[in-house]
Amino acid sequence: MSIVVVGFLAYDTVETPNGRVDEVLGGGASYFAIAARFFSPVSVVAVVGSDFKAEDMRLFTERNIDTRGIVKADGLTTRWHGRYHEDLNMRDTVSLSLNVLEGFTPDLLPDQRRADYLYLAPNDPALQEHVLDQVPSPKVVVADLFDHWIESTRPGLVKVLERIQVLLCSDNEARLLSGEHNLVKAGRAILKMGPSTVLIKRGEYGVLQFSDEGMFAVPAYPLEEVVDPTGAGDTFAGAMMGFIARHGRVTESSLRTAAVYGSVLASFVVERFSLERLLDLTWEEIDKRYREFINLIDSHHSRWTTQ
Amino acid sequence: MSIVVVGFLAYDTVETPNGRVDEVLGGGASYFAIAARFFSPVSVVAVVGSDFKAEDMRLFTERNIDTRGIVKADGLTTRWHGRYHEDLNMRDTVSLSLNVLEGFTPDLLPDQRRADYLYLAPNDPALQEHVLDQVPSPKVVVADLFDHWIESTRPGLVKVLERIQVLLCSDNEARLLSGEHNLVKAGRAILKMGPSTVLIKRGEYGVLQFSDEGMFAVPAYPLEEVVDPTGAGDTFAGAMMGFIARHGRVTESSLRTAAVYGSVLASFVVERFSLERLLDLTWEEIDKRYREFINLIDSHHSRWTTQ
Repeated sequence: MSIVVVGFLAYDTVETPNGRVDEVLGGGASYFAIAARFFSPVSVVAVVGSDFKAEDMRLFTERNIDTRGIVKADGLTTRWHGRYHEDLNMRDTVSLSLNVLEGFTPDLLPDQRRADYLYLAPNDPALQEHVLDQVPSPKVVVADLFDHWIESTRPGLVKVLERIQVLLCSDNEARLLSGEHNLVKAGRAILKMGPSTVLIKRGEYGVLQFSDEGMFAVPAYPLEEVVDPTGAGDTFAGAMMGFIARHGRVTESSLRTAAVYGSVLASFVVERFSLERLLDLTWEEIDKRYREFINLIDSHHSRWTTQ
Repeated sequence: MSIVVVGFLAYDTVETPNGRVDEVLGGGASYFAIAARFFSPVSVVAVVGSDFKAEDMRLFTERNIDTRGIVKADGLTTRWHGRYHEDLNMRDTVSLSLNVLEGFTPDLLPDQRRADYLYLAPNDPALQEHVLDQVPSPKVVVADLFDHWIESTRPGLVKVLERIQVLLCSDNEARLLSGEHNLVKAGRAILKMGPSTVLIKRGEYGVLQFSDEGMFAVPAYPLEEVVDPTGAGDTFAGAMMGFIARHGRVTESSLRTAAVYGSVLASFVVERFSLERLLDLTWEEIDKRYREFINLIDSHHSRWTTQ
């Protein structure tokens, strides 16, 4: 029930109205792995430069995250610098230096190729296919989307969609991919492209989940303060897939609970900069907020059967 | 358990990307009353002009909506002309002619003054107070907010807030009223101003409800097509208050169910222009969508108690 995540590691500089951090550990795979690890063993496939710090590697190994698939290449680790607006739903990329990522081809270790649970971070569909070719019989493949790859490599993306079970995307990506502005039409159109479940992430407005069995709407947990939204989507994905791997079966019911755990972990990560909040998070805190979350969305429904 | 709604009737011209209707019956009190009527008797207090059509009055009387409080004044009925953007969350007011509304002071009939359930549409706080003074012992007063009155008449509004139980407002109105950008802080700040429940309406993103017992988040029902969003908020309010009046008790549980029924009725009204969809709606359709709605938000939660 181990998860293999094929993604990115980076050093991030992040500016929000609440402050700034410089050159801190980031990249989707960091958030994904540390969130997933609360539920299930995780194995990371990514590339870092020779400047990647031993103390950052220890953040993974101390949590029993398998780092054998993290390739150390000559050159610098990827750098990203982002700046959020007063409205934290909007951000600009100040700079992005791919560095060692340029030309990197993910190759899995022999035991990783037998993974039951595979997560593909947003990437060139050709590379996502390259990974899929190495894993002959996964139980569940979850892939995340990035708008750039919808526009530039649609034929490759269509082939990837036919080979995955769960697709994660933003509302705009869902519209771009499906050609439908309406999200219900978009979600249903994407289901026809291959995935059996489509999760449309809407940031502070939560998640809309589509499957053949219907729709599930889950709000984001309303917080008094959001310090840094970076990594919320990756954290959601990690916890969601962690729960699925832990649960061992993909049913409508387990997918819904997984989306709630995804929302719970995402609600923690944004409370502080970078990975800070995930690193000292306890299972007791997760369980407490899970119960608060269930109360938040519980309609106490008492159906009114007569007029 | 009758509801008295003090609000507005108008003839609307509405343009959306899906078409246009001219001079159709509108005004918040129309939507409110016709939605509330599915749950509880309703009595309307409003003013219309001498041009108000008998067939429109019949739409109310045929549904046993009490129209004795609808004053027919010399002059023209209020006219509103609105135009929605491609993004239906945004609209412009092309024109607004208050006509007979100008200078109208709502005075309730003797039996209306004994109302248990009172709904105050967005209005000048001085007029809202004038109505409150006429109803000495209501069980529940629900008031809706309009940003114009927050900016121009805050002292009067503060006095109204101390006399109501439930406040409805948009996210921007909540921010303006509380001075807090964050909606959780805004909701809690408004609770301290008087109402025991604050419902923040977020259009297609649903509703956030705040009370001393906690938060409740309910999404909007995702629709394949929204034809005309006009009246969604008033329809929500009508169904919500209708359920409360029918239920007879204001508890956290009944308020949550009320918000779901509000969302259900609002999801119908936007399917067609103006009041069209509400007018032919059946209780069977409401009940079916209520069950779909409960399924939409049901997390099937299976709490994970061990790590």
